[in-house]
Amino acid sequence: MYSNEKYPSQILREAVEAIGSLPGVGARSALRLALHLLGQPAENVHHFTAAVNRLADEVHYCRNCQMIADADICSICADRTRDARTICVVESVRDVMSIEATGQYRGVYHVLGGIISPIDGVGPSDIKVRELVERIDRMHAEDAATEDLPGGSDLNPGGIEIILALSGDVEGETTSLYIYRQIEHKGVKVSTLARGLGFGDDLEYADSLTLGRSLLARQPFRP
Amino acid sequence: MYSNEKYPSQILREAVEAIGSLPGVGARSALRLALHLLGQPAENVHHFTAAVNRLADEVHYCRNCQMIADADICSICADRTRDARTICVVESVRDVMSIEATGQYRGVYHVLGGIISPIDGVGPSDIKVRELVERIDRMHAEDAATEDLPGGSDLNPGGIEIILALSGDVEGETTSLYIYRQIEHKGVKVSTLARGLGFGDDLEYADSLTLGRSLLARQPFRP
Repeated sequence: MYSNEKYPSQILREAVEAIGSLPGVGARSALRLALHLLGQPAENVHHFTAAVNRLADEVHYCRNCQMIADADICSICADRTRDARTICVVESVRDVMSIEATGQYRGVYHVLGGIISPIDGVGPSDIKVRELVERIDRMHAEDAATEDLPGGSDLNPGGIEIILALSGDVEGETTSLYIYRQIEHKGVKVSTLARGLGFGDDLEYADSLTLGRSLLARQPFRP
Repeated sequence: MYSNEKYPSQILREAVEAIGSLPGVGARSALRLALHLLGQPAENVHHFTAAVNRLADEVHYCRNCQMIADADICSICADRTRDARTICVVESVRDVMSIEATGQYRGVYHVLGGIISPIDGVGPSDIKVRELVERIDRMHAEDAATEDLPGGSDLNPGGIEIILALSGDVEGETTSLYIYRQIEHKGVKVSTLARGLGFGDDLEYADSLTLGRSLLARQPFRP
């Protein structure tokens, strides 16, 4: 690659460095993108940077579920046709988008904004667990105030279900366990994603951990 | 991919579209980059966009060779150790950077800022050919004023050499021919890049056009 001292312009060098700091953008791509932007009319470049700046300056986070939103409440929480008593706990905004893309889920979300990872210095207080606990307490308080419990049972009095939809690695398991400990006495049903072979997967190529767990978690055959 | 109407935020959607408009950045990468930027502190995002904005707002073009520069004259034209009478004509800033990276060239440049391409609607007046002709005229006028011709001959009176270093496709050939016609009577030596097999290339894998031209342009063997 082009060495630093040979850049024809300090401004170009700084732009290449800024673009190259994005994840997955190498030095060569960064130069290509910078030269592309250099060849664009100034208003196109300003349009691009303004759209990116708005990410930093104007995005809101839903005060209910911490999802990004253009208002105080996100469009999912504001949607009255969705089941507000089934809360899917995910790590990130992208996870919400992935689950929404399946079209299979009609509940709401809680976005942790991270995952407990001692190696990366992320502890329980760095993610939105407290907000989840408070949210459950608030729902119970509202239930008590109205005494209108929709479909609750003795075991699951508020009819609230918390789905822990975190990744299957150590950080995800740790975070799931931590959250479970925080909410297990709050009278909510806690579930997690089914794990096993993917649909259409061939046994021959499955990793042995997944195959073993799929056997242990075998389910009734429904012809 | 995530369909448009399901974006959780209009601001996110616009940022993804802006990032996805960059060449070689697909919809999936654009979303990944937008979510990365969303997770960054605002000052990091502002640093990024400011560096990109400076490309549009603060880059100068050398008034001599049209190369990008941080001042009125680029660092190459300003370098008095370089041969200002050998001018390498290239399409773009990137070509200058590629040639500089070879470390083999001690002359100066002229950046056309494009290539003649009727299909793309780029004509001779859209690239910096007129500036090249004027630059040659100016050099001749300076020579006449000082009557100090360094190393000129009858055939090449000003000792000026123009190297046409454009791409080998139809557009490059057309542009080279057009420039040649504009400068052939100006008493300058006009040359072009050697073309042939790459160093280390295997005959077996060479394309037949390159191999044929390499044969026609065969050179004296220097043991």
